[in-house]
Amino acid sequence: MLDKIIIEQLETVAGKKNVLTSKVDMVAYSYDATADLPRQSPDIVVFPTSAEMVQDIVNLARRHKIAIYPRGAGTNLSGGAVPLKKGIVLSFQKMDQILEVDAANLTAVVQPGVIIAALNAAVAPHGLIYPPDPGTVATATMGGSAAENSGGLRGLKYGVTKNYIMGMEVVLANGEKVRFGGKTVKNVTAYDFSNLFVGSEGTLGIITELTTKLIPAPKYRRTMMGIFKTLTDAGNAVAGIIAAHVIPATLEIMDRMTIRTVEDFAHIGLPVHAEALLLIEVDGMSEDLVHTEAEAVMQVVKDNNGDLKTAETDQERDQLWLARRNALPALASLNNTVVLEDATVPRSRITDMLIACEAIGKKYNLTLGTFGHAGDGNLHPTILCDKHNLEEIERVHQAVDEIFKVALSFGGTLSGEHGIGVAKMKYLGDELGQSGLNLMRSIKESLDPEFILNPGKMVPVREN
Amino acid sequence: MLDKIIIEQLETVAGKKNVLTSKVDMVAYSYDATADLPRQSPDIVVFPTSAEMVQDIVNLARRHKIAIYPRGAGTNLSGGAVPLKKGIVLSFQKMDQILEVDAANLTAVVQPGVIIAALNAAVAPHGLIYPPDPGTVATATMGGSAAENSGGLRGLKYGVTKNYIMGMEVVLANGEKVRFGGKTVKNVTAYDFSNLFVGSEGTLGIITELTTKLIPAPKYRRTMMGIFKTLTDAGNAVAGIIAAHVIPATLEIMDRMTIRTVEDFAHIGLPVHAEALLLIEVDGMSEDLVHTEAEAVMQVVKDNNGDLKTAETDQERDQLWLARRNALPALASLNNTVVLEDATVPRSRITDMLIACEAIGKKYNLTLGTFGHAGDGNLHPTILCDKHNLEEIERVHQAVDEIFKVALSFGGTLSGEHGIGVAKMKYLGDELGQSGLNLMRSIKESLDPEFILNPGKMVPVREN
Repeated sequence: MLDKIIIEQLETVAGKKNVLTSKVDMVAYSYDATADLPRQSPDIVVFPTSAEMVQDIVNLARRHKIAIYPRGAGTNLSGGAVPLKKGIVLSFQKMDQILEVDAANLTAVVQPGVIIAALNAAVAPHGLIYPPDPGTVATATMGGSAAENSGGLRGLKYGVTKNYIMGMEVVLANGEKVRFGGKTVKNVTAYDFSNLFVGSEGTLGIITELTTKLIPAPKYRRTMMGIFKTLTDAGNAVAGIIAAHVIPATLEIMDRMTIRTVEDFAHIGLPVHAEALLLIEVDGMSEDLVHTEAEAVMQVVKDNNGDLKTAETDQERDQLWLARRNALPALASLNNTVVLEDATVPRSRITDMLIACEAIGKKYNLTLGTFGHAGDGNLHPTILCDKHNLEEIERVHQAVDEIFKVALSFGGTLSGEHGIGVAKMKYLGDELGQSGLNLMRSIKESLDPEFILNPGKMVPVREN
Repeated sequence: MLDKIIIEQLETVAGKKNVLTSKVDMVAYSYDATADLPRQSPDIVVFPTSAEMVQDIVNLARRHKIAIYPRGAGTNLSGGAVPLKKGIVLSFQKMDQILEVDAANLTAVVQPGVIIAALNAAVAPHGLIYPPDPGTVATATMGGSAAENSGGLRGLKYGVTKNYIMGMEVVLANGEKVRFGGKTVKNVTAYDFSNLFVGSEGTLGIITELTTKLIPAPKYRRTMMGIFKTLTDAGNAVAGIIAAHVIPATLEIMDRMTIRTVEDFAHIGLPVHAEALLLIEVDGMSEDLVHTEAEAVMQVVKDNNGDLKTAETDQERDQLWLARRNALPALASLNNTVVLEDATVPRSRITDMLIACEAIGKKYNLTLGTFGHAGDGNLHPTILCDKHNLEEIERVHQAVDEIFKVALSFGGTLSGEHGIGVAKMKYLGDELGQSGLNLMRSIKESLDPEFILNPGKMVPVREN
């Protein structure tokens, strides 16, 4: 529990109306969207309204060695927003202004609390989009998604958050405010701090402003579903599409378990006897090119023994996407705990990984479905379980261990888009090796020697 | 001068055939392509043949606090490869193998000494390209261009080097070898080390292997020249093309001074009475889209009072590009020293910057021409001077100071693609502020506390 004097000092710095301390309120900030993690209430939640206020809070926290947990909308899937060591949750809910949309430079400047969808709504009248689109676009914040380098459904063609952050303002653990990058599309002045802070999960500094890149909205699109009798056919179709040099905006997969669960949940007429579905959307500025790419995709689906369904209207498109958008809620409805992983492999290993996940589910006798961004090699093996069944949870942990082991053996990575957070820290050495862990710590310790920024996440404390 | 014992140790570690020490040989490594910098011969040049050999050399250098200067082909334009404090030049000429081209994953794995053009030649049979294309593609190395985050003519549409480096192996100043990233297109495991080392100018670690992204080669292209009577018209046309949501592969500008010099040099029939030229190439996978984009570009050129010349054949295209490719050699032929800057501004400020550069040339009575990547806001104001004329060189320095001051006042940056190196270190604080400089130093000191890696570049030593 924080000393009453420190609470009062925080109230003075931030203003009483920007502070929460009641027990009930603290419970609301004790968790994020990650399953199977212990909860922890913070001592206080502060809602800063300016970068200068963030500096004052950081200076206070540093002097008293209090942990600070920056928080966007709490949609994190690796425990990144959980205040493990109590202390201060810094919620950016009140720094939610879009400061500028600069159509001439294809940029926007936003505060960290801006919702991703709100930015897209603001730039749409200019014919522009901000492409990164995690499943939670309607609630997740720009600051949170930048800190986590969020991916999403359009990553294959358009890239992920880091590809759209051109500059930022950050408050460091030493209380200094730094700006770097900006509106120039090329910039090699200084180290690439934007990319260092993007994806650093709030462990190196606190983002207080972002300059983002925008792109012209694609004018045409074509949405298709490929229905396959085997996982291998579906996986081969993914590889075939890339080999045909078509880069779809979206190339999603759902396995049989996911298909059936979604159909039971949403009754949208999915082919429940299929072993796998691909949802594919090609888009672009040219009707002709989009048509050509759609034809190529359809040929690849047929060549791999797939049946085709194409969306002829916007309504039919929405229907196809409904299946994918329902994957997680549908799976989540089956039991009280959804362990959603994001093991990622080179795309040539997608088929192998799908088969491996299915086998691991069987081996540990678990309800395991896999869906995800097949075109990126970014899969979401998802295990449904009962958190009160400790024996089952133990099997879940063993299965997850094995999923990551297999992903790494395929030349993959622990996380494609959810981050390391608390949940995957124990596997970090398996991917990075001891020298990689040392490098992580060197960077962390140079910027936050007291480990006050999001402690317990991403960077294991050095064992002396 | 290095102790004879250390020379012998280096010869033992690297093998005598991989070491140069003669005075004549040292002179060849005393400079790079940057003008107006003092030369400095190293004590020894070592040609490592493996990452392990690099580790041994680094360990030896660290024990004896000897500076190490990694070197690709020495095409650097900010003094990055000059061995300011003598010591060891580490030339990667002998680590020049393309280790893998993986067409299924659209990746390649290369050693740092691979020439950029050689990689492109190796991937061309797969219908793929490695897009970054600095002017020196035929000689510059992958390691050097990664360390400098090189730009080039295609940056506008395809991005710069950092957008194509997916993973790497690096030897750190502590002698440890670290691998990170890889073939997965999404990866949020650990901090984004690839982007930290790309553009770090050899000051944080020594790149010993790179995994690069490849893309399908565009199938169609259209090349045009816009001829303008005023700089303002040309600048407005650049803004107009972007505003029309056309992103050309290349959008280059040459001012009157550059046009005339190139024409005098190469006699290719350039319009010598024009105030500015734009060279524009649109490309893509769809003939239809490329045609539509070319039409839009031509309309913008006309709307801004420009005359048009279009390339109807490959030969005509080559002729148009000859003008741009000759810009630097032509300017260089005029006098013994070419000070080539790369001040960069948001693209909406291109016209202002062009006019400012012209005015600065006049103010200091200098021969100043500007060309460059207009679509990126990345301009190359180029001053031709006589290095033996000290009074003139003083005016050059004043003019360069002013160019950077103006670029920063327009929301620009010190360097779009050439790097900070020695040449621009003194301006760094103007862009980053004291807190930004402190951040640079914190990162540098955490990874290279003894400043043995490329000392004297990019990061000013802390003044206590």
